[in-house]
Amino acid sequence: MTRTLKLVVEYDGSDFCGWQRQENGPSVQQHLEEVLARMVGGPVTVVGASRTDAGVHALGQVASFQTEASIPLDGFRMGMNSLLPPAIAIVSAVEVAADFHARFSARGKRYRYSILTRSSRAPLERHRLWHKGGAVLDVPAMRAAAAALLGERDWSAFRAAGCTAKNAVRRVDSIEVSELGPYRIDIDVEGNAFLRNMVRILSGTLVDVGLGRIAPGQVTEIVESRDRTRAGPTAPAHGLTLVEVMYDA
Amino acid sequence: MTRTLKLVVEYDGSDFCGWQRQENGPSVQQHLEEVLARMVGGPVTVVGASRTDAGVHALGQVASFQTEASIPLDGFRMGMNSLLPPAIAIVSAVEVAADFHARFSARGKRYRYSILTRSSRAPLERHRLWHKGGAVLDVPAMRAAAAALLGERDWSAFRAAGCTAKNAVRRVDSIEVSELGPYRIDIDVEGNAFLRNMVRILSGTLVDVGLGRIAPGQVTEIVESRDRTRAGPTAPAHGLTLVEVMYDA
Repeated sequence: MTRTLKLVVEYDGSDFCGWQRQENGPSVQQHLEEVLARMVGGPVTVVGASRTDAGVHALGQVASFQTEASIPLDGFRMGMNSLLPPAIAIVSAVEVAADFHARFSARGKRYRYSILTRSSRAPLERHRLWHKGGAVLDVPAMRAAAAALLGERDWSAFRAAGCTAKNAVRRVDSIEVSELGPYRIDIDVEGNAFLRNMVRILSGTLVDVGLGRIAPGQVTEIVESRDRTRAGPTAPAHGLTLVEVMYDA
Repeated sequence: MTRTLKLVVEYDGSDFCGWQRQENGPSVQQHLEEVLARMVGGPVTVVGASRTDAGVHALGQVASFQTEASIPLDGFRMGMNSLLPPAIAIVSAVEVAADFHARFSARGKRYRYSILTRSSRAPLERHRLWHKGGAVLDVPAMRAAAAALLGERDWSAFRAAGCTAKNAVRRVDSIEVSELGPYRIDIDVEGNAFLRNMVRILSGTLVDVGLGRIAPGQVTEIVESRDRTRAGPTAPAHGLTLVEVMYDA
């Protein structure tokens, strides 16, 4: 009998060329597919909810696959963890309805972008924080801009040149700018779906607002311009983490 | 004029053979001395408060050195950060009295040992947590044992075979066992000074108490036995962080 399994996957993106299989290096998808092929004795196709870029991390990536194998759920989880590199972990494995698809069934995603403004870098977290050493960010201005960026919009100004999505309309449900101590800022972004680099460009734009380079009142017209050159820079990949993918119950 | 400088140093110990210069690999001390030699144009001897082992991290290592150079304090800090590898950072540089010595002037140190008991490992923090996957730790028992381990004692049962200290008497001022969510336990240990591997053996012993292998009431007699074979295992280096070194004002 064919079973459909849903995995929650954590990874340190530093060592990978991203989620998706690529010619130019090891991807998270490739590792999962190779490990599953060994376990079930045949090829397995793994679908990921989000095609995270090279260097982007995950605490809650969701993957799905189908199999005829009768391996118990905990056997999948523990067996995969013993075969995967230490930079990837399967946090849970559950059986779901046959029509579940990690990507197409997702109704929303939450990402976190983390920034350190301390003058000196933080060696122990250097792989997961964007170090804007010495930057003084105006957090109320960032929050005002964030509030103006909510809703269903055409996000053409906030997508990478190589983004292949036909339609640039996405819904951003919330953007929270949190101060964690004097030098740490997290930007939590939740929406129904995101274009390529969209969260990184949103974060880079909010940092430009924090630095006074863009006024909070300008962001609406930047969205409406649909002009990528008007928005802020693409914040580096290593500050971004996919925190959660939401599905209907 | 000779100046004495005090540095606060953070590092990710994963890439180093420890604080102290060694034949077998790069040490934090060697990196600091080489960078300072380049900056001041001559040899510099750097003293560290704690000779952390290979793999042990620091958020608050303290180092001191003397120099005739007239480089401003922020010049030392920023210049060193630009020349050091990303796994080391100078957080602050201040001028101190001529008789200040990072090691001999220290009146106390605080270390943190971090444990993850979740079944699946945590890729993003795998370099700084001891993963005891699936372990169920009895935290009240660990706290009872911790309370029995305070005070000035002969810690011969809690030191590495290679420890060269002539005298094994040290004072442990506090041991706090904190639960950070359902699967994270931190053990914070503060004392006047520590023997080689002492915090790691204390942590390994408390974990054995948490697992029911050692009763809280036994730890006093384990200390008194002065017998290393009676205490718990040496917890792995990568779970340990030197958090702070204390000095008289």
